[in-house]
Amino acid sequence: MVYGAIEAGGTKFVCAVGDEKGHIIESIQLPTKTPDETMPSVIDFFKRYELKALGIGSFGPVDVNKESLTYGNITSTPKPGWRDFPFARTMEQALKIPIGFNTDVNAAALGELTHGAAKGLGSCLYITVGTGIGGGAVVRNNMLQGLSHPEMGHILVRRLPSDSYIGKCPYHGDCLEGLAAGPAIEERWGKKGADLAGQPEVWELEAYYLAQALMQYILILSPEKIILGGGVMKQSQVFPLIREKLNELNNGYIALPELADFIVPPGLGDQAGITGALMLALAAE
Amino acid sequence: MVYGAIEAGGTKFVCAVGDEKGHIIESIQLPTKTPDETMPSVIDFFKRYELKALGIGSFGPVDVNKESLTYGNITSTPKPGWRDFPFARTMEQALKIPIGFNTDVNAAALGELTHGAAKGLGSCLYITVGTGIGGGAVVRNNMLQGLSHPEMGHILVRRLPSDSYIGKCPYHGDCLEGLAAGPAIEERWGKKGADLAGQPEVWELEAYYLAQALMQYILILSPEKIILGGGVMKQSQVFPLIREKLNELNNGYIALPELADFIVPPGLGDQAGITGALMLALAAE
Repeated sequence: MVYGAIEAGGTKFVCAVGDEKGHIIESIQLPTKTPDETMPSVIDFFKRYELKALGIGSFGPVDVNKESLTYGNITSTPKPGWRDFPFARTMEQALKIPIGFNTDVNAAALGELTHGAAKGLGSCLYITVGTGIGGGAVVRNNMLQGLSHPEMGHILVRRLPSDSYIGKCPYHGDCLEGLAAGPAIEERWGKKGADLAGQPEVWELEAYYLAQALMQYILILSPEKIILGGGVMKQSQVFPLIREKLNELNNGYIALPELADFIVPPGLGDQAGITGALMLALAAE
Repeated sequence: MVYGAIEAGGTKFVCAVGDEKGHIIESIQLPTKTPDETMPSVIDFFKRYELKALGIGSFGPVDVNKESLTYGNITSTPKPGWRDFPFARTMEQALKIPIGFNTDVNAAALGELTHGAAKGLGSCLYITVGTGIGGGAVVRNNMLQGLSHPEMGHILVRRLPSDSYIGKCPYHGDCLEGLAAGPAIEERWGKKGADLAGQPEVWELEAYYLAQALMQYILILSPEKIILGGGVMKQSQVFPLIREKLNELNNGYIALPELADFIVPPGLGDQAGITGALMLALAAE
């Protein structure tokens, strides 16, 4: 018996089948078009297997409240066609199996806690820095949720006084995502992050904002491990800069582990999210 | 059979005996001097009862990690005599009963969730604004902890450009506590908060900083209820100002409940902490 997993992102869907140990047996990638275009291929892929359960880690915002009538829906996304899409219900009706459902980043945190960089711990934080900035967490072995799921990418950070960039977040302008996600990097410097690898000032500024955000997350959540994934974090030169700036901000206040072990890339690489979605399937069974 | 509870604050200890429903049968208050001066009276009080268990909600920082050798200790406090004081162990050796131990604010959050303003919910945030600013939370029915307990009072907020006050936090200068706790109010305005009730500019500024902090807590933790206690929050005129400024900051981004029901004073009044400590005793039994 095997389990299904979907990592639904804004640009692509990863669909996979795997086992209870987190091994991926087969996976496909599909572009995220509209639900009418994308979902039939997703369903066809899973129909080829006899699955025990399916886990979905989805781009958000989503409704993760099991008591809600719209549980399992994507909610107020600006993405054409996906607003109010009943994601979990669509898959349940198609496959007639239990469905686990959460955000892509909560799923990634769960994946890293179960099989990745936070294995054996009771808590971790997973931050993705890419087209947007999102955060998920496991707290005392449960994915973090309350009123809804976290929206950690939109916290306010103090601006570097010499940084006059206006910010790119459509809701908040210069929140963390507006100052430090991929599109902000591109708009501020005129090139994509991958093409700015050799310009240290780009990564100094990036680290300035990300370290501030991590300090807030630490003060509020006290995670045992912080995992930084997403496209921007492929620029691995930013990790030591973030650690250095976090050390300055903390100023000895919180007793932190060795930062090289505490702030790390995903142990599962690009498979954190899909592995977490597989773990959501196990939990849903 | 009854339970014991201690709410250990920086200026006073509340010791109480109560039942499993959270009713306080008897309580005393003692000034917080040194452990040698304070603890014998605390122990004498509880020795008069046959207790099933004792719960302690303590000022911090404390060690809440049950795997740690120093679990139940107060750790790096500047308070004379209390640094490295083995609080839980001292009480266990004196009373020979199970001891529950956590921060005063995590205990207050638990008290409010069990019997106060957040009754029936799975999560809440409790913030105290007084001599310092501290935060505790319950997340999915567990008190929030990970690497350690939260230190939410020390997050950075953006300064009002016209506010030139340097900040009073000995570690961070102008973090939230440094800008908005009772001593900062007194130093900035030259009088204690209670004597500034009629000066709206004081509370506008206070709300400016507290609303920013709440916005960060909401984005990161997504609590179902936010409870604001402590001496400064007795100035109830600040609640509507905080709600108004939070509404502006949120700008419709997160779907929040009616703010008058979402951001509230403690349902248990000044008994949130001691009631929570009693619930810690029940959980320790």
